Amino acid sequence: MEESTLVCTDVPALVDAIQTLAVRGAPLLGIAGAYGVSLAALRGYDVEEAAELLAEARPTAVNLAYGVRRAAEAHRAAVKNGAGPEGAASATLAAARELHRQDAEASRRMAAHGLALLDELLPGGSHRILTHCNTGALVSGGEGTAFAVALEAHRAGSLRRLWVDETRPLLQGARLTAYEAARNGMAYTLLTDNAAGSLFAAGEVDAVLIGADRIAADGSVANKVGSYPLAVLAKYHHVPFIVVAPRTTIDPDTPDGASIEVEQRAAYEVTELTAPHAVGVGPEAGTWLPVAPLGTQAYNPAFDVTPPELVTAIVTELGVVSPVTGDEVAKLCARSRQVTIG
Amino acid sequence: MEESTLVCTDVPALVDAIQTLAVRGAPLLGIAGAYGVSLAALRGYDVEEAAELLAEARPTAVNLAYGVRRAAEAHRAAVKNGAGPEGAASATLAAARELHRQDAEASRRMAAHGLALLDELLPGGSHRILTHCNTGALVSGGEGTAFAVALEAHRAGSLRRLWVDETRPLLQGARLTAYEAARNGMAYTLLTDNAAGSLFAAGEVDAVLIGADRIAADGSVANKVGSYPLAVLAKYHHVPFIVVAPRTTIDPDTPDGASIEVEQRAAYEVTELTAPHAVGVGPEAGTWLPVAPLGTQAYNPAFDVTPPELVTAIVTELGVVSPVTGDEVAKLCARSRQVTIG
Repeated sequence: MEESTLVCTDVPALVDAIQTLAVRGAPLLGIAGAYGVSLAALRGYDVEEAAELLAEARPTAVNLAYGVRRAAEAHRAAVKNGAGPEGAASATLAAARELHRQDAEASRRMAAHGLALLDELLPGGSHRILTHCNTGALVSGGEGTAFAVALEAHRAGSLRRLWVDETRPLLQGARLTAYEAARNGMAYTLLTDNAAGSLFAAGEVDAVLIGADRIAADGSVANKVGSYPLAVLAKYHHVPFIVVAPRTTIDPDTPDGASIEVEQRAAYEVTELTAPHAVGVGPEAGTWLPVAPLGTQAYNPAFDVTPPELVTAIVTELGVVSPVTGDEVAKLCARSRQVTIG
Repeated sequence: MEESTLVCTDVPALVDAIQTLAVRGAPLLGIAGAYGVSLAALRGYDVEEAAELLAEARPTAVNLAYGVRRAAEAHRAAVKNGAGPEGAASATLAAARELHRQDAEASRRMAAHGLALLDELLPGGSHRILTHCNTGALVSGGEGTAFAVALEAHRAGSLRRLWVDETRPLLQGARLTAYEAARNGMAYTLLTDNAAGSLFAAGEVDAVLIGADRIAADGSVANKVGSYPLAVLAKYHHVPFIVVAPRTTIDPDTPDGASIEVEQRAAYEVTELTAPHAVGVGPEAGTWLPVAPLGTQAYNPAFDVTPPELVTAIVTELGVVSPVTGDEVAKLCARSRQVTIG
């Protein structure tokens, strides 16, 4: 495996990196969005236009829009207070850095809250955890969301096995989560998304831990496609299904699951295979080999929505929401406002 | 796409073709096994040894062992009745041809029974059917099992959509079922196995139709990995989950699901990707690109087992078993003995 650094020197390059998934994962999208706005400010481009371009680069992850908004608001406030272009750009960059720092701090807190929850739900301290997609340091200012909890368990000596779903079509589990697990010396095993059912049936899964791209006010969770089938399997097998996400992933303006816009992606991600070492996705990113007949139509939603009744708990940096109901989600959001005010 | 014919001139070549999945699918494995035994007889090799090699080439599909046994028994009977090598070989080949003919006939009957069942369960005559793996003419002496039912619906004008799971790790859905659907002019859409959950949630699946590799006496169904999660999703969404398989797939000697041996396959099928046009699988079959870190351990069962309580009906050439219970399965098997005797 190879870890390479992608340098985006202007906003269109960053928008492209976001759309081809070279930059992905809800928390990281927020941070990238904020830095993107400050990049526009520092380079002297139109900040509002850049903010709009960035916020619309992908529709489902609420964190992207949130990060962009925070940086753009910092810019506007600085301009309003009489700052020149340079001062306004500095203020924007400071806002992005603050978001970055807060995300790392949130990651640490989610890891601690998540491990405490695991230890409470699964006495015995030897957890076999199934995860989907990639939720580690590669999507975060810190060590991530769901992956950070598994890593915390590993460090505490209580992670018996991390089951890593490969996560088709783009194989973020195989390419990224397996890499992060190997790098951290965790006991992990890769599987096709199809094989998760066999693990549940064999009693080999103690808990499912996933991230989220948007959580609606009623507690519905949008996350990488394949999360919902895991939630149904977990329910059927009485296994806790735990969502780990920062408070900023909760969008009080999205009332319920049906209101979440799910991004539909191109058919070639399903009908063709690509060399896995390419950066990002898309016909330019590497050689794509057709696997299905020419002209095959594909259904390729990037996310699915899990209703609150299938979610055992939502772990945030502010604490754990369980049971997952609109009221409990609202209480957590009220708490976060108090924290902000205080 | 390219359809090529693989000629196996001796038994080891056929065993290899079976193990690398160039020849696969329960009914076709039975036919190939029977022809393999007659090939050994015609070439003057040790028939019993060839039969043993072939029967053990893959453990889960009962049809393989059945086809091999039928041909080997025909050989033994001919020898016992005083036939010379040539006569015994002819008798063996005749037995293989009879199995082939019977399989095509069974396919026609399953298609008719299956469509009648669909029309009964889903009044309105516009079926959206989800299928997994490949169960068409490429696995059968006729038009297959589950796919044959969908094709029958297509011909009757009542197939609104065939949802084709890509079926990781070996993509039989994308490579083979999409090809067969396109060739027959059916309305089909390909999806990652992960995306099936979203279709159920959106109410876009009227029925699931799959094949089977072994059905135990209690009605437990072993089929391609990923079938069990679909059964759980179908149950959760009150969608019929229908298994289509010839009577020979039912193994009365396997008492229940726990007794079914599930083949575990090599890690590289999950940790590496291959060019899809290669014949068969295995490091020799084409270029394999690593997707996961070197040394990644993989969990790669070829099949999973669906318990009878999740199966709405089993469609065979002798009729439909529903509800799926040990008693009903036994009744069907008793009927088949009467047919054989009469």
